[in-house]
Amino acid sequence: MAKFVTIGERIHCISPVIRKAMDERDPAPILKRAKEQIDAGATYLDVNIGPAESDGEERMKWAVQLLQDNFDNVPLALDTSNKKAIAAGVEVYNRTKGKPIVNSADAGDRISYINVAADCDAIVIALCSKAGVPAGVDERMGYLMEMLELGMGLGMEPDDMWFDPLVVVAKGMQDQLGDVLEALRQFSEQGFKSTGGLSNVSNGMPKTLRPIMDSAFIAMCMQAGMTSAIINPCDQRMMETIKSCDIVKNNVLYADSYLDL
Amino acid sequence: MAKFVTIGERIHCISPVIRKAMDERDPAPILKRAKEQIDAGATYLDVNIGPAESDGEERMKWAVQLLQDNFDNVPLALDTSNKKAIAAGVEVYNRTKGKPIVNSADAGDRISYINVAADCDAIVIALCSKAGVPAGVDERMGYLMEMLELGMGLGMEPDDMWFDPLVVVAKGMQDQLGDVLEALRQFSEQGFKSTGGLSNVSNGMPKTLRPIMDSAFIAMCMQAGMTSAIINPCDQRMMETIKSCDIVKNNVLYADSYLDL
Repeated sequence: MAKFVTIGERIHCISPVIRKAMDERDPAPILKRAKEQIDAGATYLDVNIGPAESDGEERMKWAVQLLQDNFDNVPLALDTSNKKAIAAGVEVYNRTKGKPIVNSADAGDRISYINVAADCDAIVIALCSKAGVPAGVDERMGYLMEMLELGMGLGMEPDDMWFDPLVVVAKGMQDQLGDVLEALRQFSEQGFKSTGGLSNVSNGMPKTLRPIMDSAFIAMCMQAGMTSAIINPCDQRMMETIKSCDIVKNNVLYADSYLDL
Repeated sequence: MAKFVTIGERIHCISPVIRKAMDERDPAPILKRAKEQIDAGATYLDVNIGPAESDGEERMKWAVQLLQDNFDNVPLALDTSNKKAIAAGVEVYNRTKGKPIVNSADAGDRISYINVAADCDAIVIALCSKAGVPAGVDERMGYLMEMLELGMGLGMEPDDMWFDPLVVVAKGMQDQLGDVLEALRQFSEQGFKSTGGLSNVSNGMPKTLRPIMDSAFIAMCMQAGMTSAIINPCDQRMMETIKSCDIVKNNVLYADSYLDL
């Protein structure tokens, strides 16, 4: 079994510091967040530049080169609603440490992101949703099949499609969390890779509770067969849990020092 | 779905303090451990008096009455290799808060503990093992079926048999942890209740790692369908995780204060 893949979520233009650094092409704040996440054990880093309608191509190129030049070609997830910016980022992307990830397609308005990924031989995060929250497991599986068919028709390997069941929020949609876990179990049973925005589960919860809920939930997701997640790797409890679950799943050989590896 | 059932493991004659208190019929140390576990949220308390060959019956009666009189008839798991002591404990046991648990039968030398439980209308913990660690999931299921058949033949309800897959240790038997989780999944799929000595998983690990591993593993077990576990309820991280998983599984309605309930 392969080790669980973490995608660090903290280079996101929703953060005022990151937004400003991107606007001003100021490396320091971005490199700082990247280093923190890599030191904490992130496999991939997500680079969210927002819609970036005017200068997305140049902006994504700059960010990709900045991060890969400084961190030994760290693999990246390119995250924007500007498709040209993704293609531009891939142009300068170094694949030594792994293919780029296109974040993200869905089965609705963003279905063409599968074409983008296929065109540039990237991995695609494929959200099993069309408009809003899918009604259950079957609807999620239906979207998975739609997107899989499209991707495979375009020559993609199924392993390059990482299906996201759409993690719902415990506070308000608690009764639908079972569907998320069951969808992950079915994805896994059928041999598909998966991912998802983990911290959605604790959205709106008191700040002190969020790492506790996130950590419990990621362990449940890993037991259900999830292979990757978009997370904050600086959440120590979450990373400890992921590493422990990797031991239980026999993905990583046990050593007393396993938390430090 | 029913809330996860925790069985507090800390009243155990392997502890010198508890052993001495039991020998001298000194209530204080036992009541202290009981209160700590109940305050931490334990559902049941395990009462392990050891083999207690000479005075087991009187010793178990004393412990049962002491705990139930002081803690509003707290439900108990009676844990000893002296069968007469279990029967004696049940004689004085008050069922207001739940049936007593007989801890434990297995499919080998201890199979007759199922008869003990059936005779006194108790729940039985039924370890899916005969001699040593079962070789895989099928062997565990085989023992389950043997014990179920015996119990049902004696008039027991399947819900009163809590099957223990035998939790193995990560350090040394890491490759068999998947069998434990898959056995729990199959027990759950077939509608059986389950339990197990959770902290076995982290046996021999550095002290600081044990709560981290135990907490990750319990979440995986709960996702696999486990309905109960024998644990140290004073391990805060473990209890936080169990409560969070109960929210995810929709066993308990979400409230911002759910950790305090």
